[in-house]
Amino acid sequence: MSNSPLRVTVWHEHVHEQTSKVVKDLYPDGMHGAMKAGIEEYLGQTVTVQTALLEQPEHGLTDEVLANTDVLTWWGHAAHDKVDDEIVNKVHQRVLEGMGIVILHSGHYSKIFQKLMGTTCSLRWREAGEKERLWVMKPGHPITDGIDGEFFEIKDTEMYGEFFDIPDPDETVLISWFEGGEIFRSCCTWDRGKGKVVYFRPGHETFPIYYQKEVRQVLANCVAYAAPKSSAPVRLTADQIRPSLETIEGDHQADESLHEHQYKEAGK
Amino acid sequence: MSNSPLRVTVWHEHVHEQTSKVVKDLYPDGMHGAMKAGIEEYLGQTVTVQTALLEQPEHGLTDEVLANTDVLTWWGHAAHDKVDDEIVNKVHQRVLEGMGIVILHSGHYSKIFQKLMGTTCSLRWREAGEKERLWVMKPGHPITDGIDGEFFEIKDTEMYGEFFDIPDPDETVLISWFEGGEIFRSCCTWDRGKGKVVYFRPGHETFPIYYQKEVRQVLANCVAYAAPKSSAPVRLTADQIRPSLETIEGDHQADESLHEHQYKEAGK
Amino acid sequence: MSNSPLRVTVWHEHVHEQTSKVVKDLYPDGMHGAMKAGIEEYLGQTVTVQTALLEQPEHGLTDEVLANTDVLTWWGHAAHDKVDDEIVNKVHQRVLEGMGIVILHSGHYSKIFQKLMGTTCSLRWREAGEKERLWVMKPGHPITDGIDGEFFEIKDTEMYGEFFDIPDPDETVLISWFEGGEIFRSCCTWDRGKGKVVYFRPGHETFPIYYQKEVRQVLANCVAYAAPKSSAPVRLTADQIRPSLETIEGDHQADESLHEHQYKEAGK
Amino acid sequence: MSNSPLRVTVWHEHVHEQTSKVVKDLYPDGMHGAMKAGIEEYLGQTVTVQTALLEQPEHGLTDEVLANTDVLTWWGHAAHDKVDDEIVNKVHQRVLEGMGIVILHSGHYSKIFQKLMGTTCSLRWREAGEKERLWVMKPGHPITDGIDGEFFEIKDTEMYGEFFDIPDPDETVLISWFEGGEIFRSCCTWDRGKGKVVYFRPGHETFPIYYQKEVRQVLANCVAYAAPKSSAPVRLTADQIRPSLETIEGDHQADESLHEHQYKEAGK
Repeated sequence: MSNSPLRVTVWHEHVHEQTSKVVKDLYPDGMHGAMKAGIEEYLGQTVTVQTALLEQPEHGLTDEVLANTDVLTWWGHAAHDKVDDEIVNKVHQRVLEGMGIVILHSGHYSKIFQKLMGTTCSLRWREAGEKERLWVMKPGHPITDGIDGEFFEIKDTEMYGEFFDIPDPDETVLISWFEGGEIFRSCCTWDRGKGKVVYFRPGHETFPIYYQKEVRQVLANCVAYAAPKSSAPVRLTADQIRPSLETIEGDHQADESLHEHQYKEAGK
Repeated sequence: MSNSPLRVTVWHEHVHEQTSKVVKDLYPDGMHGAMKAGIEEYLGQTVTVQTALLEQPEHGLTDEVLANTDVLTWWGHAAHDKVDDEIVNKVHQRVLEGMGIVILHSGHYSKIFQKLMGTTCSLRWREAGEKERLWVMKPGHPITDGIDGEFFEIKDTEMYGEFFDIPDPDETVLISWFEGGEIFRSCCTWDRGKGKVVYFRPGHETFPIYYQKEVRQVLANCVAYAAPKSSAPVRLTADQIRPSLETIEGDHQADESLHEHQYKEAGK
Repeated sequence: MSNSPLRVTVWHEHVHEQTSKVVKDLYPDGMHGAMKAGIEEYLGQTVTVQTALLEQPEHGLTDEVLANTDVLTWWGHAAHDKVDDEIVNKVHQRVLEGMGIVILHSGHYSKIFQKLMGTTCSLRWREAGEKERLWVMKPGHPITDGIDGEFFEIKDTEMYGEFFDIPDPDETVLISWFEGGEIFRSCCTWDRGKGKVVYFRPGHETFPIYYQKEVRQVLANCVAYAAPKSSAPVRLTADQIRPSLETIEGDHQADESLHEHQYKEAGK
Repeated sequence: MSNSPLRVTVWHEHVHEQTSKVVKDLYPDGMHGAMKAGIEEYLGQTVTVQTALLEQPEHGLTDEVLANTDVLTWWGHAAHDKVDDEIVNKVHQRVLEGMGIVILHSGHYSKIFQKLMGTTCSLRWREAGEKERLWVMKPGHPITDGIDGEFFEIKDTEMYGEFFDIPDPDETVLISWFEGGEIFRSCCTWDRGKGKVVYFRPGHETFPIYYQKEVRQVLANCVAYAAPKSSAPVRLTADQIRPSLETIEGDHQADESLHEHQYKEAGK
């Protein structure tokens, strides 16, 4: 892999800031501004971060932007259904090709996360401003590098609770304890095609969570972890399919035209 | 769980039998007939098996049929795009609720498998009638109960090769060796919601594979393994969401109307 | 697999009952008596349960007992270091051959669990009689069949907390929330060789936990889940090693005597 | 994590070079020399590599060497039983603390690998100089970065075949196809405590495999992947155990002296 800076795009639906004075006052540069600053604070010169918003043409995710994004972060809540299916399909394709994606907080209900998971991604929640304690479940994992101790806390937060309807994660990095009696897998990873998918729970429009040190550290670590790690070719091409290593002795008469058709249909 | 017979529905696109004399001669009762017979041969009185075909109204998968199916098997190849999206969504919902599903052979490219996996499910293939050796990767697994040895072979078969674009399986039960130089994860399982998903590779329209003893044994075992194993409630109801165990001391003013709306939208 | 009753052996160190009046009063038939009754209550005629104690010759785990045990449950706490290494090795060998093992509560620090895991299996704990809430993490899993709801509670319990130094489980079935701020993976499974290993946390000598309905239900389910599920041969024999399917064209001169020696040393 | 060079120790039993002229002629600098050169070739200035041999005092793995090793590679074959149990225990402890370990080829039967896995790590083999094709199973994984294509081949090799008696890997990165009819999980990873364990199959004393470009590339990638990735504290200290976040209302009288004793015994 090359050593040029990691190209990060912070995607944000940017709705609450325009409909709620509380949110606007809390995040004067938008939540995307706070996320961008957090990533830059911890990854420094190793990244270049741009933002993209739902309200922009093609939601800010043009073919060119996607082709030049190594890791995409995704925050949505009030407008999941406003995201165009065609854009979702393009993002999905880019993840399978190797782009990392970090799904944040209420992004659990986004079309792109549901499409990558194959499940509803539903969960239980309660917005009571209670305490959350996030336990480190894999002490050697790069996502928790920099966390000083076996857990960190968020003083006032929205609760998310199990059952979180996701496939069993490849890695469960953090599990939260909530004051009110719930637990939640708050940071998980999955491989999909050549891409890495990370879910990170903390973050909310009416709590100042994206200003908290540990949250920014872990967010930045998630981005670095989701970065492409291999220059290997993405996928075979049609003419690589059929050659065999050995002389095969079977005398079966095959018509492979159907498969070839499907293969081309799939755009490969 | 109750001890009444497992209700199995064998779904088949039933196209090749109507377009190819070779296939019709090989499977005079249809491939679904051979699969049904194989399942009944090994599971006997513990199952009741019915079939459903693409050509039937609602592809034979009415709400009533789905509600009364414990395990669905799925074979498709030439007509994946003829399957109605609404039916796919209903099957998907039933899997998340606990119905088992066994995806067979070229069903890897079906809409329902892609939707459950979140990936393209593409693979490499060659139809040369070569030899396949299927190695048992988990010797204690119920899916290979009855297989006498560390592998079994299929004399003439179509090759499927890696990279198979699927999420890392929860369990990889069989891996195939092919005469021409390829390998393939031929039997895998994943949990999705409350349901079990199984993929089993062998099976082809122009080879007599569904008559082979070991294939029928493993197919039947897959069905038994995918059967619902818990009577636990599927998912929380809306009024279970908010109560907390503890008195929470935060003084945050929350408006949960948005979440509730989403929750109801999701049909829960 | 046959339909004869599952042969269960409940192993118990049986120390606290002899050194503490509190424990003796709480468990007049020994903790092993309560566990045996719990398993029988839920599995009925499908099992035969015997007990084995540390104080017996060969800790009650003679070759004959082990050879005739399908699932072994293990409770230890005060006398882990009194368990003979040779017995541990025999139990380990039987698990690899297919015997299920269910490790209970403070058994996390037993030699057999550490040997199967390859880690210290250390954890944090606090004995304050606090409340525990066990969340169902896999709603379709047979181990939680019969649990009516998304969690169950234990009113007064010892706390066990993360980081629990175990390999990532194959399945995480229950995660506990504790009143004091901790969480814990309270029911997990792993495959080792042909055998299934299950860890189930609840259970303590000075709390009446093995009398609680849900604990007995889950304990019985763990036993049923750990039962051997395949009659497939355990492992290859030496004369199966070398034959190849194909004529190999390499002309390498090999001396395999060393490997054969090692193989025989390993007792195969 | 710091940016100082990764400190790698290549451990080798160094027996075949002294007992076989073929091996000595093939590896005039010892197999450890070839491995060291391969790692340096691909990791360059980012590593410092030293070697350690069985024949040295404490097998070259003194407390100081272990304390200053970030990643240890391990090759053994003829002298597994000559490795001192005390050294094995120290290496094991260092892995749990975060040192990466890369087990090579016949090292599968080493004491340290068996101890980390909890299984026999047995496999089938044949030394016939046949062809091996290693398929990339996770196209985005850093271990196969630099491999140009979906597989690479080794022209003449010893066969290793399934069933490989290991716990289900956290990641299966490469699976081999062998000319003679076998398949094998040739590159796998597992987390143990804070450390990363990697197994990489290719490599043999009488084949020039450690001179092959792709093998050296993957070996170097395995080392980089096994490197510690987090500065998080290894494990809790005794005085962190008991404090609770909440006031717990239970009135249970606890005697934690036993636990504390065990905890101190475990050296924490």
